Amino acid sequence: MTITITAFEKSPDGGQGLARDTRVRWALEEAGLAYDVRLVSFAAMKQPAHRALHPFGQIPTYEEGDLVLFETGAILLHIAQSHNGLLPADSDGRARAMMWIFAALNTVEPPILELSTSRYAEGDKPWTQERLPLIKDRIRATLQQLSDALGNADWLDGDFSAGDLMMASVLLRLRASGLLDEYPNLAAYVARGEARPAYQRAFAAQLAINAP
Amino acid sequence: MTITITAFEKSPDGGQGLARDTRVRWALEEAGLAYDVRLVSFAAMKQPAHRALHPFGQIPTYEEGDLVLFETGAILLHIAQSHNGLLPADSDGRARAMMWIFAALNTVEPPILELSTSRYAEGDKPWTQERLPLIKDRIRATLQQLSDALGNADWLDGDFSAGDLMMASVLLRLRASGLLDEYPNLAAYVARGEARPAYQRAFAAQLAINAP
Repeated sequence: MTITITAFEKSPDGGQGLARDTRVRWALEEAGLAYDVRLVSFAAMKQPAHRALHPFGQIPTYEEGDLVLFETGAILLHIAQSHNGLLPADSDGRARAMMWIFAALNTVEPPILELSTSRYAEGDKPWTQERLPLIKDRIRATLQQLSDALGNADWLDGDFSAGDLMMASVLLRLRASGLLDEYPNLAAYVARGEARPAYQRAFAAQLAINAP
Repeated sequence: MTITITAFEKSPDGGQGLARDTRVRWALEEAGLAYDVRLVSFAAMKQPAHRALHPFGQIPTYEEGDLVLFETGAILLHIAQSHNGLLPADSDGRARAMMWIFAALNTVEPPILELSTSRYAEGDKPWTQERLPLIKDRIRATLQQLSDALGNADWLDGDFSAGDLMMASVLLRLRASGLLDEYPNLAAYVARGEARPAYQRAFAAQLAINAP
């Protein structure tokens, strides 16, 4: 069955791999699945045709036969549950890998999103510079807890899983801020993720479209 | 197998059902599962014994034999995948129900979290009053899209599912702000969730601990 995802016609990050299609491409590559990409302009993302696929007018979407999904967590989970390579074999281990997907998206990412919101939605406000250290300290508090949880391990729970894929994808958005490098074990963790051949292929595929 | 969850010794909301154990209680009630509750003080939440269960020092946690989970999305997913009543029978429908769990937690909740952060972490800052309308407008933009997606339907995708349980749980946190009532179909959707006997039992159980 053909898999089609959507991605930005031109990603705002110029191909740094920060757009959310990269994590879906990575999952598809880990699972060894071929996929097509349909590029969507910012204007088209807000039109009815795209909003029928994604009610919140974002990318990526995922189409496979009659199934249409949005939310990268849900897409990753669907790929991981239907194919080998992204979840452990035992049921408790699978539940914990899924837990780390949620931890990435619902605990680690929200303070990071505040950083982008502050930049893009409130960048012209008089308080933005003064708020920045507060936002960064909230991110640091979360990173410290994650760093403690990871410790000296290579991955969050046993072998590489969908949970690591999502956590590394969320964390690498922080690199430009310098915050990631304050936690050497997390920086090394993200680097291990990026070194995976599947990530390399995903990164190259999005770069081919978005390179400046 | 005994199921044990953790909850606040005394919830800051005084039993309004806004603490995150309520959504787990609701899921357990929908699935017809008995459970024990271990109450945790704010001090104990940050101690090593609790952080061994929840690296980010929050409630709720979920213990079932050797399995320990945190993140309400992961706990809900585990309950929904192991028991009847929270996911449809067909695999595409199941994937979409899971998608709505992620949409609740990763698209709808983050701007709502900004509202709490602004109140609790930046309540004493000179910019907080002026930022409030901006935060509320970001919440409104998301609610409008969700309202469009729901339309006149009772639930987000067919029958009531784990996706609705999580979405209603996230939305009801907005009631005090007045924002929910600006979208009558969403207010009615949340009320339908709250009218379910399983929700009523979950609400009563947390109220019994937290009533002022």
